[in-house]
Amino acid sequence: MNLTVYLAGQIHDDWRNDLEKKAKEKGLPLQFVSPQTNHERSDSVGEDILGEQPGNVYRDDAASSINNLRTTVLMNKSDLVIALFGEKYKQWNTAMDAATAINQGIPTILVRPESLHHPLKELSNKANVTVETIEQALDVIGYIFE
Amino acid sequence: MNLTVYLAGQIHDDWRNDLEKKAKEKGLPLQFVSPQTNHERSDSVGEDILGEQPGNVYRDDAASSINNLRTTVLMNKSDLVIALFGEKYKQWNTAMDAATAINQGIPTILVRPESLHHPLKELSNKANVTVETIEQALDVIGYIFE
Amino acid sequence: MNLTVYLAGQIHDDWRNDLEKKAKEKGLPLQFVSPQTNHERSDSVGEDILGEQPGNVYRDDAASSINNLRTTVLMNKSDLVIALFGEKYKQWNTAMDAATAINQGIPTILVRPESLHHPLKELSNKANVTVETIEQALDVIGYIFE
Amino acid sequence: MNLTVYLAGQIHDDWRNDLEKKAKEKGLPLQFVSPQTNHERSDSVGEDILGEQPGNVYRDDAASSINNLRTTVLMNKSDLVIALFGEKYKQWNTAMDAATAINQGIPTILVRPESLHHPLKELSNKANVTVETIEQALDVIGYIFE
Amino acid sequence: MNLTVYLAGQIHDDWRNDLEKKAKEKGLPLQFVSPQTNHERSDSVGEDILGEQPGNVYRDDAASSINNLRTTVLMNKSDLVIALFGEKYKQWNTAMDAATAINQGIPTILVRPESLHHPLKELSNKANVTVETIEQALDVIGYIFE
Amino acid sequence: MNLTVYLAGQIHDDWRNDLEKKAKEKGLPLQFVSPQTNHERSDSVGEDILGEQPGNVYRDDAASSINNLRTTVLMNKSDLVIALFGEKYKQWNTAMDAATAINQGIPTILVRPESLHHPLKELSNKANVTVETIEQALDVIGYIFE
Amino acid sequence: MNLTVYLAGQIHDDWRNDLEKKAKEKGLPLQFVSPQTNHERSDSVGEDILGEQPGNVYRDDAASSINNLRTTVLMNKSDLVIALFGEKYKQWNTAMDAATAINQGIPTILVRPESLHHPLKELSNKANVTVETIEQALDVIGYIFE
Amino acid sequence: MNLTVYLAGQIHDDWRNDLEKKAKEKGLPLQFVSPQTNHERSDSVGEDILGEQPGNVYRDDAASSINNLRTTVLMNKSDLVIALFGEKYKQWNTAMDAATAINQGIPTILVRPESLHHPLKELSNKANVTVETIEQALDVIGYIFE
Repeated sequence: MNLTVYLAGQIHDDWRNDLEKKAKEKGLPLQFVSPQTNHERSDSVGEDILGEQPGNVYRDDAASSINNLRTTVLMNKSDLVIALFGEKYKQWNTAMDAATAINQGIPTILVRPESLHHPLKELSNKANVTVETIEQALDVIGYIFE
Repeated sequence: MNLTVYLAGQIHDDWRNDLEKKAKEKGLPLQFVSPQTNHERSDSVGEDILGEQPGNVYRDDAASSINNLRTTVLMNKSDLVIALFGEKYKQWNTAMDAATAINQGIPTILVRPESLHHPLKELSNKANVTVETIEQALDVIGYIFE
Repeated sequence: MNLTVYLAGQIHDDWRNDLEKKAKEKGLPLQFVSPQTNHERSDSVGEDILGEQPGNVYRDDAASSINNLRTTVLMNKSDLVIALFGEKYKQWNTAMDAATAINQGIPTILVRPESLHHPLKELSNKANVTVETIEQALDVIGYIFE
Repeated sequence: MNLTVYLAGQIHDDWRNDLEKKAKEKGLPLQFVSPQTNHERSDSVGEDILGEQPGNVYRDDAASSINNLRTTVLMNKSDLVIALFGEKYKQWNTAMDAATAINQGIPTILVRPESLHHPLKELSNKANVTVETIEQALDVIGYIFE
Repeated sequence: MNLTVYLAGQIHDDWRNDLEKKAKEKGLPLQFVSPQTNHERSDSVGEDILGEQPGNVYRDDAASSINNLRTTVLMNKSDLVIALFGEKYKQWNTAMDAATAINQGIPTILVRPESLHHPLKELSNKANVTVETIEQALDVIGYIFE
Repeated sequence: MNLTVYLAGQIHDDWRNDLEKKAKEKGLPLQFVSPQTNHERSDSVGEDILGEQPGNVYRDDAASSINNLRTTVLMNKSDLVIALFGEKYKQWNTAMDAATAINQGIPTILVRPESLHHPLKELSNKANVTVETIEQALDVIGYIFE
Repeated sequence: MNLTVYLAGQIHDDWRNDLEKKAKEKGLPLQFVSPQTNHERSDSVGEDILGEQPGNVYRDDAASSINNLRTTVLMNKSDLVIALFGEKYKQWNTAMDAATAINQGIPTILVRPESLHHPLKELSNKANVTVETIEQALDVIGYIFE
Repeated sequence: MNLTVYLAGQIHDDWRNDLEKKAKEKGLPLQFVSPQTNHERSDSVGEDILGEQPGNVYRDDAASSINNLRTTVLMNKSDLVIALFGEKYKQWNTAMDAATAINQGIPTILVRPESLHHPLKELSNKANVTVETIEQALDVIGYIFE
């Protein structure tokens, strides 16, 4: 049994590569998908495909429609979601992705430093499991295969 | 036709009272529900009902389960959601409430200052309408009754 | 038992008033809702509420998001949909509204002149009943109360 | 990860072949399905299988039931829908297919010349992404695989 | 608490009147709805509204689309379904109505003489309760109010 | 693209073998599943597995629960349903299977002699396509692969 | 806003009366429904309505089908579920009712002595809130109305 | 056609191994999944991954969230559920798993000694089939492949 895991969360460091490498080391039969992790491309994809837009809000609108299409296609294929929150950035996308997965019945693991527990407490309560590190998230997934 | 509107968003100023007053002035046949707006009570309700917990994370867990039950009961009764984001606070609850409403097919209006459009662009794209002020949100609702 | 009926279709003549008057004459216990029937307002509502947009496509985008919110709230309240097609105009909204109702399990009556049957044949096959006149549509609804 | 794409839209020119060829050139791992693109066969299939019908409306009814069965089986297998509108023809089928996909949670890309934006504005607002050319539609799909 | 009960089943004797009278005698707070019980009207309603059809199959098609619209509107309003099978007639409508209610999560009581149990055994197994008389069906409903 | 087809209908002659042979001759990539077609086994399976029951109704109840489990597992795996009605037998199972498939969004082809159209008219109207012979049913399925 | 609350749990003492009295004292606008609380009637209702059955398992089968119909009708009408577990009895019905409510999106409060937490831990984790006393359960509900 | 079977039930003896061995002997093309069957690991997994918790209830909460995530992922992959109840232990998890499967439309076989029928009667009535031994459960599954 292989599982597809959607990696929601910020795209400002390489936590996904780190997680994928560690999953491989543990021999877990996982395939990973994620939102666009190239930040510049994620912001410019609307204008890249649709042409110049008349201002930043319109530029963002164009990009977000394509980012959301990507996300929806990939989440529809996923068996599990890991949603990682860090200290920086607004990360409202991550909250949206996690809530969407939970509402669609896709089991969801929340990863956040304990320092963020308070503002995340309601989302944490709705998620299936909340942990502090990606190692713990992989331990949880590894437990499925025991 | 009366409509019930769930007011998602931060609970640190009295934007809900302001909105309700303005809705009344316009004569809109609306009933409003919302998460607990007493911040202290919202944080302490878990210990208030279940007794002292062994630390802040557990205190938050206890509160969040009761806050989420409240939210779910009230959102199940709602025809529309207004989700307001401001400059301060993490507001991940608001993103979670908005995404939950959208996933359940409850039409959702996002209110945010233009300065927040970039981090909210994907949620804005999924919401039905995005505006900048609560007056505009009420204009959108008023349009349903024209 | 009262029923709420959503009247999908073009907004360029007063077929809805005509239908509502005839329903009243027959004594049918119906409440009617519909998309915005003031064409100019329907086109300008985006700019009316959100302010001037940078061109016609953006003006249309702003208006359509508010029109769709209105439509969704009202269709969620409806027990039946009547979708009327005429000889003029593109009427893709009407096809979208009818297909949406059918997919949500809301019984739908299609009204169209026989001359339009060919291009509407697949939608007609998915609708519950297809008729040629609003009198026939009301006869179908009246039959529910026999 | 392979994706199946349903190509909704008019069947009067060979835009589908063009799109499939371009997708191949880009090396996208896509499988395409579509409604019956042989127009005559699409119109006559009811009588071809069920025998002569007593007039054009009945001929159309017979054909449409078989076309809809085909469409439903194929859309149930699809991960994405591209819906293309052109300047000619009523194309109510295309609007119906797009609205059906959107309602079933299948991500949908609308392709239309800018000149058609006004009559399509509400459907465009419900679709995930709206573009003007099939090249742009393929760029959007290509973005999923980046 | 009032309940609406849909009475599926044959329309060739007055079992519905009998049942409604007995429900009244027991003081049960029930509202009853049912398919068209005037057999002739049920068969002719298509031609009555849409005009003469080119043969019996087409006459039946026209009538059935209107009968199904009626049934769907009324079943959507129902809390419970009673489906009664008798010795005569094909009663495939009754089987269809019962299976539809069961699939939609509407609790369903099957009424049939024991002599019909064998051909109805799979439907009986899917229904919530199977009884032999309408008195027993009302006893089951009365039990809800104890 | 391979399709799995559930063959609902009576089990008293070998129409399924006939249909499967013809499908093979046409080279259609179909896999067929069906209810238990050994009539005696279908009636006795409850007692075969659970032991002797205290009378015929209980014998039937035991069998029907196992027949329904089989049917549900197989229909969950199916892309299409063919439901065949003949002149003999009650065939309420067939009506139940067809209505279940239709309610679950599985496209359904009804096969019946024209002589049975009247009692099947409402089910025929809900099915996607109605034909008279299994050859026609296979022509409809073949059309999906054109 | 009135809420209907389904009271799942054992029927061997009068905890429901106690809870209803306390809810009244607090002035909560609640309507309560519950499974049959007369234990003997709950066990005998199958034979009471359907006549003597050939043994205890069959007697239980007859009763359970009617108890389940009652439960389903009432839970369909409910906004909230309270599920109470005590030290005695198997209470598998209570676990079934709680799991059913949770799966249907009806917010659920679990009441159990701390001594039972271990065997209930997975159900407790799926429920919205877990408390130890009916007073706490009412405090949670009261919080919705603050 | 291969089927995946989720084995719900107590984890205190090796009934699953026994069942899997017997399934293999019969040549049934089944893949089995189950909750964590190592009892100690099932109880300690929360602390194993998340670190020491401040007491038994918190230890249980941590474990149950991970057990439920595991269960949900595996049940989402299953075509059938076997839920086995024995004379010992509370087994509320088993009741929860069975009710969850039934609510999600996954066919479910209940295995229990006749002595437990009374407290399980409502769950037995909701399950598709109830048997007394794992051999009978495998006979029921074998019947699907006849």
